[in-house]
Amino acid sequence: MLTPRRGDDFRTIWLNPDDDGVVQIIDQQALPHEYRVRDLRHWQDGLVAIRDMHVRGAPLIGATAAWSLYLAARGSDEPATAVRTAAAALLESRPTAVNLRWAVERTLSIVERTLAGDDLAALLRIDATAICDEDIGISRGIGEHGLRLLEAIAATKGGGTVNILTHCNAGALATINWGTATAPIYFAQQRGLDVHVWVDETRPRNQGSQLTAWELALNDVPHTLIVDNAGGHLMQHGLVDIVITGTDRTTRRGDVANKIGTYLKALAARDNDIPFYVALPSTTIDWEANDGLREIPIEQRAAEEVTHVYGIGDAGPMTVRTTAPGTPVGNFAFDVTPARLVTGLITERGICEASEAGLLRLFPERGRS
Amino acid sequence: MLTPRRGDDFRTIWLNPDDDGVVQIIDQQALPHEYRVRDLRHWQDGLVAIRDMHVRGAPLIGATAAWSLYLAARGSDEPATAVRTAAAALLESRPTAVNLRWAVERTLSIVERTLAGDDLAALLRIDATAICDEDIGISRGIGEHGLRLLEAIAATKGGGTVNILTHCNAGALATINWGTATAPIYFAQQRGLDVHVWVDETRPRNQGSQLTAWELALNDVPHTLIVDNAGGHLMQHGLVDIVITGTDRTTRRGDVANKIGTYLKALAARDNDIPFYVALPSTTIDWEANDGLREIPIEQRAAEEVTHVYGIGDAGPMTVRTTAPGTPVGNFAFDVTPARLVTGLITERGICEASEAGLLRLFPERGRS
Repeated sequence: MLTPRRGDDFRTIWLNPDDDGVVQIIDQQALPHEYRVRDLRHWQDGLVAIRDMHVRGAPLIGATAAWSLYLAARGSDEPATAVRTAAAALLESRPTAVNLRWAVERTLSIVERTLAGDDLAALLRIDATAICDEDIGISRGIGEHGLRLLEAIAATKGGGTVNILTHCNAGALATINWGTATAPIYFAQQRGLDVHVWVDETRPRNQGSQLTAWELALNDVPHTLIVDNAGGHLMQHGLVDIVITGTDRTTRRGDVANKIGTYLKALAARDNDIPFYVALPSTTIDWEANDGLREIPIEQRAAEEVTHVYGIGDAGPMTVRTTAPGTPVGNFAFDVTPARLVTGLITERGICEASEAGLLRLFPERGRS
Repeated sequence: MLTPRRGDDFRTIWLNPDDDGVVQIIDQQALPHEYRVRDLRHWQDGLVAIRDMHVRGAPLIGATAAWSLYLAARGSDEPATAVRTAAAALLESRPTAVNLRWAVERTLSIVERTLAGDDLAALLRIDATAICDEDIGISRGIGEHGLRLLEAIAATKGGGTVNILTHCNAGALATINWGTATAPIYFAQQRGLDVHVWVDETRPRNQGSQLTAWELALNDVPHTLIVDNAGGHLMQHGLVDIVITGTDRTTRRGDVANKIGTYLKALAARDNDIPFYVALPSTTIDWEANDGLREIPIEQRAAEEVTHVYGIGDAGPMTVRTTAPGTPVGNFAFDVTPARLVTGLITERGICEASEAGLLRLFPERGRS
């Protein structure tokens, strides 16, 4: 029986220290019922892991793609060709995840710079490691900046409990460690703040109840699971001090594509004067997109995600169908929260207004000349 | 194998025509996987049916209470005492449902008017029948008035599909027949309008996916099941023309207590300029309550509703746990949608503004002198 590592030692993906032909991931499909580590031996294993959501979360998808391209190079006599083939397939596996494109393009730029005789696999191994280390650094940055928001709330409450609502899993499990939306929470707990997290179940895939609740429990952070419908009621009754979510893609103007239902929480936060923050690594900013509602494609996923539920029954883990056979289903994976509803963006460089001006203040190198 | 009746012949509760000691209900816990009829032989069977949600929906809860009090009278040598005992127990079974109180008080007023020698059971049988007949009349009234809204939308769309979003089950299954929110939809379909219903799954109990989808399919109404998180996205993209929900309790000022999550849909409708209507029998108006947020008690229900899901597995119907053991849960059953977010109330007497003035226009007898 494996025991998950916690705190500083936690990782969602790593190279097997005993076999550099094997990349290992936490199999997030098995959580919370079982902690299982899955081996990736070929780039196609990485593709499957991304497509079937054994890994999910924008930063982790990017890292998995980078490690998959390393496996493609390592397993081929023509590594550059193999990497390009794998890159094309990986790009199509999750169309909304902008980090996937970012990681693939970063890797391809290395391929383009190699000369005959270079060990491409070694270069990509080093770069995949760097992507993971950089991601941990990004999460730490987000955590430190976001921590200040939570400290300010704690100060206004005289040290009373700070209640944070979050949607989906923008946690350690969505990144390499610490997460984005959860990083400020973990850091607040480490600094002794009294925090409590309302965890949205996050239908249809239950990333909140199955992943966020799992990792908060792993790290002893007080939390309460609620259905996605409940957040508005909690906000009406003063039970939420701040909402922090992640994002899969943020536009230049600060529109936020995130797990379906995020927009509803942003509306409720606005209606109840509760700050609504989005935590993001700058790699999830799509500088080419302006109007999120018009420009960000929204994945539709399989009906079975809605009609079937995975859980533990009398005979162990199993899937049950909750609906009548043949029920027609629409399954939209993401929605877009317009920038006007976002109080601020928490990035690794600091917190800014959800607007082009706000983002350019932190990322001046993205300004159009 | 029983076959459910449809259309005009549909009933959720009835007296067994062959045995007036048995009241029969559709067992809504078994839907959509099985159509099962449950016998109520003692008033306690009715209490269990209400408490364990074999019946649910404000009007049907009221009718079930009335039938249960009939069974109490019929089964006792001291019927008046038995009815009073049963009434007290029934009133505590579902604190938010105002119809329950209404039906119990109506029945008790009959008890108080009886004289020695009256056949109380017969009087209560006749009154329970009348409550059901009146409820069908109310649903028909709501259906006719609400139909005009859908006809108006169809006219603006040149006869194109009218897309209605609904939350929870305010359907035929929540009443005796036709429902409240669904009555306009059924009537529109009968008149040949092209309607399509977005059915909110309605976590945690899945009344949308398990009940509303079932009854719409039974009556051949086109529909698509979505998770509760999806409605905002659909509204942002012009895929919803009108929202119609039911309510468990509406205050004198038009605040609406309904299934948890209703408030979030009302916010999204407002943000996208989509009409948000609430369909209700006037029996669900609490004329004594003004401010819904302050005055309406919100039930908290068992954690298992969130952590466990009922469905069909390989071995037939079963319950699975979807969360890690010991996950802390908050399970709020209802929320309150403030009147300011409600475009109008559809009642059996007509449609009015969600305000005291609007309600008193339709119900002048409730004016304070």
